Amino acid sequence: MTLRAAFEFFSKLGVSFWCFHDRDIAPEAETLAETNRRLDKMVKLARQLQKDHDVSLLWGTSNLFSHRRFMAGAATSPWPEVFAYAASQVKKAMEITHELGGGGYVFWGGREGYETLLNTDMKRELDHLARFLHMAVDYKKSIGFAGQLYIEPKPKEPTKHQYDFDAAACHAFLLQNDLVDHFKFNLEANHGTLAGHSFQHELEYAAAVGLLGSVDANRGDLLLGWDTDQFPTDVYDTTLAMYTILRAGGFTTGGLNFDAKVRRQSIEPVDLFHAHIGGMDAFALGLKAAARLLKEGKFEKFKKARYIGWDKGLGQEIEKNRLGFRELEAYTLAHGEPKVESGRQEMLENLLNAAIFG
Amino acid sequence: MTLRAAFEFFSKLGVSFWCFHDRDIAPEAETLAETNRRLDKMVKLARQLQKDHDVSLLWGTSNLFSHRRFMAGAATSPWPEVFAYAASQVKKAMEITHELGGGGYVFWGGREGYETLLNTDMKRELDHLARFLHMAVDYKKSIGFAGQLYIEPKPKEPTKHQYDFDAAACHAFLLQNDLVDHFKFNLEANHGTLAGHSFQHELEYAAAVGLLGSVDANRGDLLLGWDTDQFPTDVYDTTLAMYTILRAGGFTTGGLNFDAKVRRQSIEPVDLFHAHIGGMDAFALGLKAAARLLKEGKFEKFKKARYIGWDKGLGQEIEKNRLGFRELEAYTLAHGEPKVESGRQEMLENLLNAAIFG
Amino acid sequence: MTLRAAFEFFSKLGVSFWCFHDRDIAPEAETLAETNRRLDKMVKLARQLQKDHDVSLLWGTSNLFSHRRFMAGAATSPWPEVFAYAASQVKKAMEITHELGGGGYVFWGGREGYETLLNTDMKRELDHLARFLHMAVDYKKSIGFAGQLYIEPKPKEPTKHQYDFDAAACHAFLLQNDLVDHFKFNLEANHGTLAGHSFQHELEYAAAVGLLGSVDANRGDLLLGWDTDQFPTDVYDTTLAMYTILRAGGFTTGGLNFDAKVRRQSIEPVDLFHAHIGGMDAFALGLKAAARLLKEGKFEKFKKARYIGWDKGLGQEIEKNRLGFRELEAYTLAHGEPKVESGRQEMLENLLNAAIFG
Amino acid sequence: MTLRAAFEFFSKLGVSFWCFHDRDIAPEAETLAETNRRLDKMVKLARQLQKDHDVSLLWGTSNLFSHRRFMAGAATSPWPEVFAYAASQVKKAMEITHELGGGGYVFWGGREGYETLLNTDMKRELDHLARFLHMAVDYKKSIGFAGQLYIEPKPKEPTKHQYDFDAAACHAFLLQNDLVDHFKFNLEANHGTLAGHSFQHELEYAAAVGLLGSVDANRGDLLLGWDTDQFPTDVYDTTLAMYTILRAGGFTTGGLNFDAKVRRQSIEPVDLFHAHIGGMDAFALGLKAAARLLKEGKFEKFKKARYIGWDKGLGQEIEKNRLGFRELEAYTLAHGEPKVESGRQEMLENLLNAAIFG
Repeated sequence: MTLRAAFEFFSKLGVSFWCFHDRDIAPEAETLAETNRRLDKMVKLARQLQKDHDVSLLWGTSNLFSHRRFMAGAATSPWPEVFAYAASQVKKAMEITHELGGGGYVFWGGREGYETLLNTDMKRELDHLARFLHMAVDYKKSIGFAGQLYIEPKPKEPTKHQYDFDAAACHAFLLQNDLVDHFKFNLEANHGTLAGHSFQHELEYAAAVGLLGSVDANRGDLLLGWDTDQFPTDVYDTTLAMYTILRAGGFTTGGLNFDAKVRRQSIEPVDLFHAHIGGMDAFALGLKAAARLLKEGKFEKFKKARYIGWDKGLGQEIEKNRLGFRELEAYTLAHGEPKVESGRQEMLENLLNAAIFG
Repeated sequence: MTLRAAFEFFSKLGVSFWCFHDRDIAPEAETLAETNRRLDKMVKLARQLQKDHDVSLLWGTSNLFSHRRFMAGAATSPWPEVFAYAASQVKKAMEITHELGGGGYVFWGGREGYETLLNTDMKRELDHLARFLHMAVDYKKSIGFAGQLYIEPKPKEPTKHQYDFDAAACHAFLLQNDLVDHFKFNLEANHGTLAGHSFQHELEYAAAVGLLGSVDANRGDLLLGWDTDQFPTDVYDTTLAMYTILRAGGFTTGGLNFDAKVRRQSIEPVDLFHAHIGGMDAFALGLKAAARLLKEGKFEKFKKARYIGWDKGLGQEIEKNRLGFRELEAYTLAHGEPKVESGRQEMLENLLNAAIFG
Repeated sequence: MTLRAAFEFFSKLGVSFWCFHDRDIAPEAETLAETNRRLDKMVKLARQLQKDHDVSLLWGTSNLFSHRRFMAGAATSPWPEVFAYAASQVKKAMEITHELGGGGYVFWGGREGYETLLNTDMKRELDHLARFLHMAVDYKKSIGFAGQLYIEPKPKEPTKHQYDFDAAACHAFLLQNDLVDHFKFNLEANHGTLAGHSFQHELEYAAAVGLLGSVDANRGDLLLGWDTDQFPTDVYDTTLAMYTILRAGGFTTGGLNFDAKVRRQSIEPVDLFHAHIGGMDAFALGLKAAARLLKEGKFEKFKKARYIGWDKGLGQEIEKNRLGFRELEAYTLAHGEPKVESGRQEMLENLLNAAIFG
Repeated sequence: MTLRAAFEFFSKLGVSFWCFHDRDIAPEAETLAETNRRLDKMVKLARQLQKDHDVSLLWGTSNLFSHRRFMAGAATSPWPEVFAYAASQVKKAMEITHELGGGGYVFWGGREGYETLLNTDMKRELDHLARFLHMAVDYKKSIGFAGQLYIEPKPKEPTKHQYDFDAAACHAFLLQNDLVDHFKFNLEANHGTLAGHSFQHELEYAAAVGLLGSVDANRGDLLLGWDTDQFPTDVYDTTLAMYTILRAGGFTTGGLNFDAKVRRQSIEPVDLFHAHIGGMDAFALGLKAAARLLKEGKFEKFKKARYIGWDKGLGQEIEKNRLGFRELEAYTLAHGEPKVESGRQEMLENLLNAAIFG
């Protein structure tokens, strides 16, 4: 009934994609075998509903964080049997994602971290996490699943410290473990802010290193220290997010997912509509403002002019790796104090307002 | 006079090492040439003072953050002339560090970041930073300087967002740019906490990836959002720091530096003594407690038992890369729900208190 | 069974006091009448267990935050019927606290606040909260309950913003609404730190305004933004807390309560012992260090000397209200620049370490 | 020259008000007498410039935080001579504010707090602060200055902990010391957010207790932990601020002051124009959106309906103080579980966007 209601809701909203984790669509049973049978039954229904409602699966994932067995981690559990259980879950979740034509598969390591370093072997746990993800890459190939794999950074909560702290930490992990060609990031705004970054920072970083994959489009409350998973409403945030996404070439994989929930007091079904429609409208306003910004090109022109020194002469020589400290010292001794120019932050912020309210 | 007083102070404290940045020992002149002449004069004096007082140079560095020319970055400035100026400064600072027998050279990128993304080309700036550090590596070799190069992470302040955010971000940067063999980290407690990590986390991470280099041993105030650079006094922090450092094999490079200052109201010379002695005592108490912890081996025994499953059977097979998702699913279907055990956090915290107060 | 086990546990720990909220000891039934009958039954048992185990009730309280009816507040609900329901619960909880010989009654307003100002009439809600507490004062008198009433500040969580933000906010509220003679504070360490204060700050403030009542002795994690309710283990915190409490004359009402829980991974009964014993030991170490500090009197002597100017001459005249701006300007013009002295923070912090490790 | 340039700038901006602190317009001399002579000279000029440019003084204040004499506080200094010095400065600053026809006088206690509780007598310091402010009230009357006195809350920075932490803490202080009739608040957005409150919260609280006075209209960066004093650009913030201010009856005293500075990289005069114009435009957009919100009355109608129960029947009886716990229990037993309704947060947030982008 929940699944049927969900697809009815998708249709009413007019959205073309959905996402799920395995325990969303089928509660866990006493045994893995029975749990998987339940999943098979629901997946059959989901396939029909996808067809009936013309809704596609953006990505699937597995819940490796709610059950007590994962209290000390899934791939980073101190017990190999838990690692094996997690592997079994991901195997199945990847299969059904494939079966439903999913465009990707997300790893969110909510329990991959520690509560206290006093009982934790961080290095060994990181090695196990790498092993796990390599198995996932191998299995993906073996079943012919062509979807994109994503890692979703989050610094903390539920765990005190999660290894996938932010985009940069995930990047380090992927590079260190020869996984960087197989993954992109699924970035969530509030996960970034909990790590001390703006949402746009995480998107820019991902774009700069070629790992911008998909987006969880909920927001947080910067005065609160936990993940509020609120629907996005701030058009500044959505404008800057879409601006970075558009400049990076748009969504070549992934898309916008509301991993959000209505507030505790929003107890009526209509609140779900207010929430989703408001969130979509906020991103639509943001997309339009971002498109205006790019069309006008004021920011890009400003940046072009600001970094122009790197396109010629000294800058070009440096970028082309033709100079070293000795040559640069000679240059400085010959040319003296460099000229600097205003960063024009206030003017640029005004241009942003002009674009948003234009 | 300041330098003579400093070495007199080092002697009175009985410390064997000092650190400096170029502008600490010689104020900047109108031209780089004159600035460097001032440095040469002071370095001559410093060499004599090092000899007279039997004090060695732990590391040197260059101030690439105070002068207005660096307002938008040094290696990541939009202007190649500023990059060149920074290169000239580092060249000279590395030379005098070498001349003074320094054990290392530190890069702290206080202006390598951004105030606003609206005027920033993050990718290009990161590429320039990598270029700069490769030049430093090359120049180091060319002059035969054998000291260790360090990167010092800090997430923000003075800049809104610094690229060397934390140990993991620096790790990603070094890996991405083929620099990881040439650098280690100089970790400062308060820089870690400003990034949302415990001091020990940053040390453990660095140890896990083989990049634990040196330590700035000041502390912050977790209720304040800026770098207070207070002298360390908390024996919990010093115990856990020394515990990780000892387990990582101690300081194979680097050491403990007080990049700290007395409080604004501590206006008399004697306060400098209280501060440094208190800081040294706190680390001495921490070292003794850490040594007790290691000698008793209670934490290590607990961890050994907790991860024992990985030393045999299923765990060993996984670590040796002999199993994949299919085999692990078969294992789980055959063996059922894994057993989990208490993480014993409270007991371990009590053992920590026992070690500190033992 | 739970209640019997609890008292067995109290006995094994050797503690003399317990605390509870109504829903701790009896789950809510379909109707208030039936809920209250359940409570009566459990209270009868609790009275016997108190007697059998020689354990007294430090304070009681009512859970006005878990049930959905309180989603928008209890005393500050938009619906007077919810206010009435909350009043009924507190009436009963106060009666059973009285019946069990409780030493006090606590009000923690976990839902007295707002999720968004867009739907909130703050002034009216604050007036209702005052009305509610006046009713509680009246009812307390009417049944002859002589225990102390406490307000427990907390800035947020579960609600976005709670009116009892911190000790100062509660103080303002009590003064504004003529309630200050009837309440003291029940201060929880982590609630203070979530509001940006040290635990000791909240205690000092309460002592300064004569409202230091009781203490929830759990701690938080300053790198996390939610209430972790961990058992106290940091002897710096317990020393400074006990130092302030001793200087304020000790607990004339209230005491130390562990409103704490073991970590998620501490899944065995023995963990409860480790946790409670560690917490008690931490406060015992803190009490001993605080007593040493007071006996030696070094801090008090330092402060006496620092403020000595106020005990005589100019300072005394100011305190006695004999001078105004005109006289003070004349004094300054005559005497010139004032002398200032070092605040000796580093020395005092060293003395604190000496007391803790002495 | 600076003052002339400032007024030229005010004219070019078209603003009608300015603010200053004593050291802004005249640097401190060797003696108080000479300092005051300098002030007199500058005030004479300022009076002429006010007239020439048709600019009025919104409020004046005194810098009691930069000079080393105030390192441990001004009114809360451990040395009565410093208290006297501060009194002399405020006397003079109030006189010249009066002379310039100032509409108010602001007290910002940047050093009224502590660096460490180990050397601080909080109670005595709070008493001295109250004494100081009573003297200010007396002196104001004695010279016939009719302007409004303001207290400006800030939780920290430069000091670790400031007594005027937030609006509620200031309210408690004013009530406790019989000063509440003589002061209103000057609220700064970033000071509120550093204390863990939204800007609107501080305004709403002030309005609720009748102490909304004036506004420092700069903003901060919620990802940074210090006061950035940025010009306001976020139209959500300005809309909600103006919405609360309009509902409270507008500015009956005070107004909007930019206690802001351009960013470090904004090094050209034109940046000052971008900054001030952008800030004024942001508040103008906010004012227009707030006016729309009030005209449409959607929020007010929603709130009216939400709290309607308090205007009649049970709610009215409670508000009129005719019921107690006994009667409310009887009501609950008779009426059963209360009905609750959705708080409609998402819908209201959508309405806010509609008003801003309407």
